[in-house]
Formats: sequence, C-alpha cells, structure tokens
Amino acid sequence: MFTCPIPAPDPHRIRLAHGGGGEMTSRLIEDIFLPAFGTENLTQHDSAVVSAPKGKLAITTDSFVVHPIEFSGGDIGSLAIHGTVNDLSMSGARPLYITAGFILEEGLDTAVLSRIAHSMGQTARQAGIAIVAGDTKVVEQGKGDGLYINTSGIGIVEHSLAIAPSSIEPGDAVLVSGDIGRHGITIMSARAGIDLQTDLQSDSANLWPSVSTLLQSGIAIHCLRDITRGGLSMTLNELAETSGTTILLDETAIPVCETVRSTCDLLGLDILQTACEGRYLAIVPEKQAEQTLLALQRHNPEAARIGTVIPSGTAPLLIDGLLGVRRILSKPYGEQLPRIC
Amino acid sequence: MFTCPIPAPDPHRIRLAHGGGGEMTSRLIEDIFLPAFGTENLTQHDSAVVSAPKGKLAITTDSFVVHPIEFSGGDIGSLAIHGTVNDLSMSGARPLYITAGFILEEGLDTAVLSRIAHSMGQTARQAGIAIVAGDTKVVEQGKGDGLYINTSGIGIVEHSLAIAPSSIEPGDAVLVSGDIGRHGITIMSARAGIDLQTDLQSDSANLWPSVSTLLQSGIAIHCLRDITRGGLSMTLNELAETSGTTILLDETAIPVCETVRSTCDLLGLDILQTACEGRYLAIVPEKQAEQTLLALQRHNPEAARIGTVIPSGTAPLLIDGLLGVRRILSKPYGEQLPRIC
Repeated sequence: MFTCPIPAPDPHRIRLAHGGGGEMTSRLIEDIFLPAFGTENLTQHDSAVVSAPKGKLAITTDSFVVHPIEFSGGDIGSLAIHGTVNDLSMSGARPLYITAGFILEEGLDTAVLSRIAHSMGQTARQAGIAIVAGDTKVVEQGKGDGLYINTSGIGIVEHSLAIAPSSIEPGDAVLVSGDIGRHGITIMSARAGIDLQTDLQSDSANLWPSVSTLLQSGIAIHCLRDITRGGLSMTLNELAETSGTTILLDETAIPVCETVRSTCDLLGLDILQTACEGRYLAIVPEKQAEQTLLALQRHNPEAARIGTVIPSGTAPLLIDGLLGVRRILSKPYGEQLPRIC
Repeated sequence: MFTCPIPAPDPHRIRLAHGGGGEMTSRLIEDIFLPAFGTENLTQHDSAVVSAPKGKLAITTDSFVVHPIEFSGGDIGSLAIHGTVNDLSMSGARPLYITAGFILEEGLDTAVLSRIAHSMGQTARQAGIAIVAGDTKVVEQGKGDGLYINTSGIGIVEHSLAIAPSSIEPGDAVLVSGDIGRHGITIMSARAGIDLQTDLQSDSANLWPSVSTLLQSGIAIHCLRDITRGGLSMTLNELAETSGTTILLDETAIPVCETVRSTCDLLGLDILQTACEGRYLAIVPEKQAEQTLLALQRHNPEAARIGTVIPSGTAPLLIDGLLGVRRILSKPYGEQLPRIC
C-alpha cells in the first residue's frame, strides 16, 4: 500500500498564500473577518468612504505586539480596539472609525485568528466604533510571532477645550481613574507561567464612557493621558516635561490592589512603572478636583486624587513617599517588561 | 591589563528598550522620526487633532512587509506612503493625512531605520500628505524581519461620482495607466540576487496626480483599482466578480516592457499575475475611453486601453490571446512571489 509522501497542507494553519491577495486572501476575509467584524461598514474596495463629521478630527495609530496574544481579561484583539479608542478619548474625541491591519505568521492556527477577530468585532461594537477598513499580510515562520495588529482610529472632537499637556498649569489637581498595574502584572504572570491563584485580570477597557462623563459634567479638563508602557512614572514624567511643570505625587494616595502590590514586591517590579491598559490620568483645575473625582468614581470606585502640579522644580516628577521622604521619580529607561501591548 | 567582560550594547542597533515607551523610545522619536517626518504635524500627544474637511472621508489601512526593505526605485518607507496614497486615490479621494506604525526587530541598524524614515518623510511631502501620528514597537530578534510598517490614510472625496465596482457596466472601457509588472520583477530579482543588467526599477509611485487629471477632465469614472498583489489577473477577476460582469481583455494591448517580459519568460512567471505598485485600472464609459486614454498618457505614455466590460459570461475574466484564442484567466490562488509589498 502506498501513502502520499507529500503531506497535504494543514487547512487550519495560515499559509503564505493567505497573504498573497489572491483566492486564499479572499477566503480568509470571507470566512473569518467579515463574520467577525460585520459587513455593514467594512470596505471591500481600496478605501472606505464615510461622512465627514463636523468639527475637528482626532487621528491616532498603534501597533500591538503583546505576548501572549490571549491573557486573563482580554487578548490582542480587544486590547487593540481599546488602545486606539483610548488614544482618541485622551483628546476628548468621541471614537468613530477604526482600521485593522494584520501581520500573520505562517502556521498560525486559523481558530486562534478567528477568536481574535471575533473579540475585536465584539469589542468594537461595544465601544460603538465602526471597523471600516482592514488589511492582511503573511510573513514566513520565524519572521513574526503569531499575529501583530495595527489599529488606527478617527474620532470627532465635540468640545472646545484644549486638552493637551500645554494646558497644564501649576495648581492643577492630578487624578487617576482607577487602581494601577493590573495589565502589566497579568501579562507578566501569563508569560512566566506564574499562577497568582487569584482572579487578577487585565484592566484593558474602553475609557471613552468615563471621559465622556467628565466632559458632560462640565469639567474644564486641562489634560488626559492613559497610563500604558512605562506606567505612571513615564506618563507623568512626559506630561511634566512637555508642560514645563513639576508634578508632585502623594504615594499613599496611589490606588493599587493587594495582588498587584504583593506580586510587585515578590518579583522586585516597580509598581509605578507597571503598565495599565484601562486607566488614565486627568489633570484639572484645583477647584474642580472634587467634582472630577466624583465623576471618575461613577465608573470606577478606585479613582483617586494622587497629586498636584507645582511650578517647575528640581525634577519633572517628585513623590512624597510612604515614609514621608520626598524623592525624584525618573523616567524609566525602557519597559521593565517588553511587549505588554 | 583588564578589559570589560560585558560588551556594551551597540548604540547603533535597535534594542527592546526602544519599544518600551520610556527614555529610549523618546530618543528614537527625537533623533530619527521627528527630523525625518518634520515636526509641524506629527503629534506628541496620544492622537493628532486636525480640521475635519467638508464632504466625505475616505479611510484606508495597509501593512508593509516587503522583503528586501530597500530595492531599486524605492524602499519599504516610500512604498508604504505610495501604497496608502494610492488606496485613497482609488476612491477618487485627495490624500490628506497619514499615520505610520512601526514594528522593529531588535538588532535593526538605526542607520537603516533613519534612511527609511527620511524616505517616508520625503515621499509624504512630495505627495502633499501630512504624517500626523506614529507609533513604534520593538519585538525580539527572530520575531520580525528588520521592520514592518503600517500606514493608514485619510482623504477627502471632492467629487460626486460613485467610484466603485458596483458602478461597472457592460460596455465600459478598461484602461491601464502604464506598463505592468516592474515592481514584482524588481523585488524578485533583488531577492534572488539576479542581476538583470538593466536599469529596471520598481514602478512604485503616487497615483493621485493621474487620478486628479481624470477627475478634472470630467471623466465619469465608474471604477478605479490599483494593480498590486496578484497582478492584473487578480485585480480584474475581483472587479468582475464584485460587479457581476465579465471583463474581456485584449492580450496584445497590455503594455509590458521588454525586460519584464523576458524575465517572466526566463523564470516561468506569469506577467498577468505580477504585481505593480504604481499602476491602476480605470473603468470608464465607452464614449469617454479616448479622452481617458489621453489624460492617462499625460502622466505615462505607456497607458493603454486593454479591454471591455461585457455582460456576465462563462467566467469573470476572459482574454483574447496573442494567438487569437480566447481563454479564461482564473484568480491566482496566492501570490507567486510572497511579500512584495
């Protein structure tokens, strides 16, 4: 009895031909992306054509290379939608349209791709943002890592505030929208195979509802910034540097959940450099600090006032520590944990 | 005499910390991207805010994984700008804004990155499109291939035509904007180390000037489509399928330069499946075919009328061959040459 010496290609694995723009690419779009994203907006032409909103547009782009691609509380697909929605939200822009570009590694299980695509579609629908255009490329095995996703977003600015680092002034209050570090610690433990024996999940979330509440409450927001790579240290250092001010933090006020704190202690990680994917900083006039806190707490009871902007001092970022000592918080050199988003 | 046993990291190579969002990321942006792209538009906030144009927006996204990243007539950077500008142009949209997302492989020479970034900046300025937002991620060695780029673009639709496959009608004329296959053959020969001993270059180019001429000439354009992955066969099969028509080509009329033709013959490649990155198809009413040809030839003397749309027949795409035989041209299964864009 003879058997065929050449094994047939596994129909459940991504092949280079899936990225060739031919019949295989069409099948991938029809079998996986259209059912996942919905057909009502996704263009099958070279570009999507949509009505231009009135006012100012916010535009942003982000590539996602998180490893592993699936983790407790999310996956690379939901993270990509949230990340781009959040970047728009940080300009106070209502998210409208998003594009999705995939770089697939040859050999990727199509069931994984389908799960990720459905997760993106669901996350986008929940966020009220339309996936309007997409693109797929395939690279050889060993030239990628499963899949990478780029999402670019367009939003509409419906307020007249100048939400930007240049609006930050000494005297402003600094608030955080929830407890920090859950995303970084979740990814770290998933990657290292550490079972934290808790229900810790990534904080990956859509921040637009919270930002929208601030805008509707009439807060004269000076600046918003989501806390991602480099954590609180990086984000606040950048804001202080760009605005030419110093930010003074109160370490005792920074909300951190017990699991995150103890895991950081155990592993020697700096919680202030640990990434979130669903938390942001709001910098607002002192007289609206209390009102801002109440608005933030409607979306997350852990929201807190954590500091104050002061005139430019010895360093961009200072912190009054747990033991009452004031110290400088430097910009992290790189990320303590690579590829967290 | 003692020497340091730990070699210092090579300052001219990309490291994981360059993608960490920290000090190293800031330096990469300041040292490479800002000088290359110009600072006037590029946001240093989470998203760029620009004026919304009046009318309809075209939105598109594309990832670029071309290998090698530098080739005769272009590089991954210029290709990424042209590719996205062209996708907008195919909706008849004037390109306005573009974003740039980089996935860098650890170890990439920063001199290469700088060359590519400058090429992007220059190509964007020439095309009159503003690079408004960017993002950089770094993956470990062996999880990428030098660099991948995503560009997403926004354009404004200033005409009232419905430029789309659904507008294609039996009787329409099919024209091509220049000779085909230069890009695919250039990449193939660069990759295989074949010296063609000619000055063959990629056809990578900005198609907006040519499309703009068609619009200004009052051509009632039915459809436009650039010829990329899968070449003429793929592109026309898709258009015919989507529009429910059949397209009949005249093989003798298809413009191909001698070097491309002889290289295809030599290597057994199908010229009709070979990619371009600066050629497009215009499908227009028969009565404006001649006027369209003259307009196209103002930008490229090789432009030609190559076929006609007929009612749906035996197959989406038919070709009257060089020897007078009519045959079916099927959709390519994948790309004969992976990663050409």
